[in-house]
Amino acid sequence: MAVNYSTPAPDLLYPVPGVELGPAQAGIKKPGRHDLLVVRLAPGSRVAGVFTQNRFCAAPVLVCREHLARVAKSGGSIRALVVNTGNANAGTGEPGLRDARATCAGLAALLGCAPHEVLPFSTGVIMEPLPIERLLAGLPRGVAALAGNAWPLAAQTIMTTDTIAKAASRRVAAGGATVTVTGISKGAGMIQPNMATMLGFVATDAPIAQDVLEQLVREVAAESFNRITIDGDTSTNDSFVLISTGQAAMPGIASRDHPPYAAVKDAICDVAQELAQAIVRDGEGATKFITVTVEGGRDAAECDRIARQIAHSPLVKTAFFASDANLGRIVCAVGNGGPADLDTSRVDIHLDDVAIVLRGGRAPSYREEDGARIMKQSEMTVRVSLGRGGAAATIWTCDLSHEYVSINADYRS
Amino acid sequence: MAVNYSTPAPDLLYPVPGVELGPAQAGIKKPGRHDLLVVRLAPGSRVAGVFTQNRFCAAPVLVCREHLARVAKSGGSIRALVVNTGNANAGTGEPGLRDARATCAGLAALLGCAPHEVLPFSTGVIMEPLPIERLLAGLPRGVAALAGNAWPLAAQTIMTTDTIAKAASRRVAAGGATVTVTGISKGAGMIQPNMATMLGFVATDAPIAQDVLEQLVREVAAESFNRITIDGDTSTNDSFVLISTGQAAMPGIASRDHPPYAAVKDAICDVAQELAQAIVRDGEGATKFITVTVEGGRDAAECDRIARQIAHSPLVKTAFFASDANLGRIVCAVGNGGPADLDTSRVDIHLDDVAIVLRGGRAPSYREEDGARIMKQSEMTVRVSLGRGGAAATIWTCDLSHEYVSINADYRS
Repeated sequence: MAVNYSTPAPDLLYPVPGVELGPAQAGIKKPGRHDLLVVRLAPGSRVAGVFTQNRFCAAPVLVCREHLARVAKSGGSIRALVVNTGNANAGTGEPGLRDARATCAGLAALLGCAPHEVLPFSTGVIMEPLPIERLLAGLPRGVAALAGNAWPLAAQTIMTTDTIAKAASRRVAAGGATVTVTGISKGAGMIQPNMATMLGFVATDAPIAQDVLEQLVREVAAESFNRITIDGDTSTNDSFVLISTGQAAMPGIASRDHPPYAAVKDAICDVAQELAQAIVRDGEGATKFITVTVEGGRDAAECDRIARQIAHSPLVKTAFFASDANLGRIVCAVGNGGPADLDTSRVDIHLDDVAIVLRGGRAPSYREEDGARIMKQSEMTVRVSLGRGGAAATIWTCDLSHEYVSINADYRS
Repeated sequence: MAVNYSTPAPDLLYPVPGVELGPAQAGIKKPGRHDLLVVRLAPGSRVAGVFTQNRFCAAPVLVCREHLARVAKSGGSIRALVVNTGNANAGTGEPGLRDARATCAGLAALLGCAPHEVLPFSTGVIMEPLPIERLLAGLPRGVAALAGNAWPLAAQTIMTTDTIAKAASRRVAAGGATVTVTGISKGAGMIQPNMATMLGFVATDAPIAQDVLEQLVREVAAESFNRITIDGDTSTNDSFVLISTGQAAMPGIASRDHPPYAAVKDAICDVAQELAQAIVRDGEGATKFITVTVEGGRDAAECDRIARQIAHSPLVKTAFFASDANLGRIVCAVGNGGPADLDTSRVDIHLDDVAIVLRGGRAPSYREEDGARIMKQSEMTVRVSLGRGGAAATIWTCDLSHEYVSINADYRS
């Protein structure tokens, strides 16, 4: 099967010194499909992650948290990641935890490290037992395939209902060296990340101190993966991991005040936003990419609530799918998400450059054909001005189409 | 066009002494369609209502609140209701308010009462100017049609995308008299009532004191219309009104301790629940009626949050549509809606009588074919036990089908 990529030239994804990727076929998802990924990190690499806030979080998420905490305490380092698709190992209770630990132990034995130096990740159907024998049997094939330039096949390996393999890469001058940032992600459905997306991995060779990396992974998630929503469902497996191999020839970034920090952070944010937006563009059944910006709020939280209310409204999403300028539905969503003391007579709403609502009522200049023209585009921006402060928030989302219903009605069959 | 009714024998809807209904064609929705309803109440009737919490509430909702407050202050009484379909008069700013007031003044002149003794209601497309001339021209036809037995056509008149006219009726012995309770409602989309549903009107001839009626309308809404959700969108126009004409031959109900209160309240709750459930059964594109009960919580609020998270999840709803026992999606929704300190190892989930999840993991006895058997039914119950207290909450909802997308992608065309 030919796979398209979110990046124009997938073969030009820059390898990150210190990172090797080993995609393999383990027969977990379906025969003949790469569904298992081993990632080996050079000694001394630092890793920080953020994970789902879902209370039923998956077994691999629990094990990731445990291993990261243990490494932080003992001063060791994470040496490998292992990712399977086709099965989420969530809602699987104690047996699921045992399987996630067995996966780490299996890979650790092959790589000669400790089991707690391995982080496990799973994505796929919830509440099915993990086919642990097939997974363990696939690990040697993943290790045999390890290569620094395997990012494109790695992006393809972690796909579930994704139709596009998601990868992004940047090179930037910082601290007298050329720093590389490369990442992959997967999404498609059950997407409203809360702290992190379904699966996102970004690696850089810039040397970044552990405490700086911990803070950075949170800030980057907040500006990228946590700003997208497809269907408002936060999955049990969301994980976003930032890796610093430290192999770039530059002084270590020990604090946020260190001059190269800004350039490195910008490159990482760029890659993470590109990966996050690629998830929305490839959302289940998505035909449109919609940026929702709410500004003029008292604080970012109230802007964020309204933006999500718009982005989650099935009525707004179906109107976008139909290219129907039924824009009263956006008004309704603003009214549902707004604070109790919202003065609606100060609210303006624009669709791209077209004023729809001015001072809480239909804009006198608004003509239906102007709205219809914008709605027909494949990308557009909804901008809501609250007129009560200087805060703003942006959410990226997609429409709700027949295809979304088809995909999710038939997902397992 | 033949219209089906939610009640088996619509001609047997009991008239409520003191209530006359006048359905008319005003050409607001489309030619040849009843779209305007006048309701005349006998002198001395008492009215209490609850309205949408949407901050962009519609002009008629603002006017209803204003008129009810004025009547409460001046000791007058509400003498009439006027309802149009085809246009919500919401997001229409100052002109919309003027139109709602003009509607009340027009009907008041015809009926010989004060404008503030009329309550206006609108339902339909948001952000379109109300066709006030056609509405005013239709009022005399509504008044000419006034009759006590016009409940069936009244139910049909207020429909928008509803496919079933919703009406319910009860007679009950109370205080030595036979008390009648009859009501109508409309729903279909943009349905997650917050204090009240899109439009619901319930009338009784039981004499109920104003303060008792005010409390009763809130309690009844909380146990009926506020327990349903179709798509999680709370409309700009939700209104639920309870009318007491006081014409039953019994002593007035001056307090909740008055013996006939319980029987009257039960009859009103029965009618309201039947109307609310009829809205879910006729939800846009709905093919299944699903009761979600969450029990064993510390308080009702946490149970309600989890029940709504399940009821709103597009992934859960599409699985029900497909009769696909992809029950991990329910687990995921529970994890999203649950409190931060939820101990998932105490959570059980049943689908009707089939145990799906026991102590946080897949139930050992669970067989896919048992889940599939229940999922094929047109009605079913999801029961989640949290194992952390004695509180419970129930939500009624429906599935998410292709037809929902079609209806809402094409609504205005």
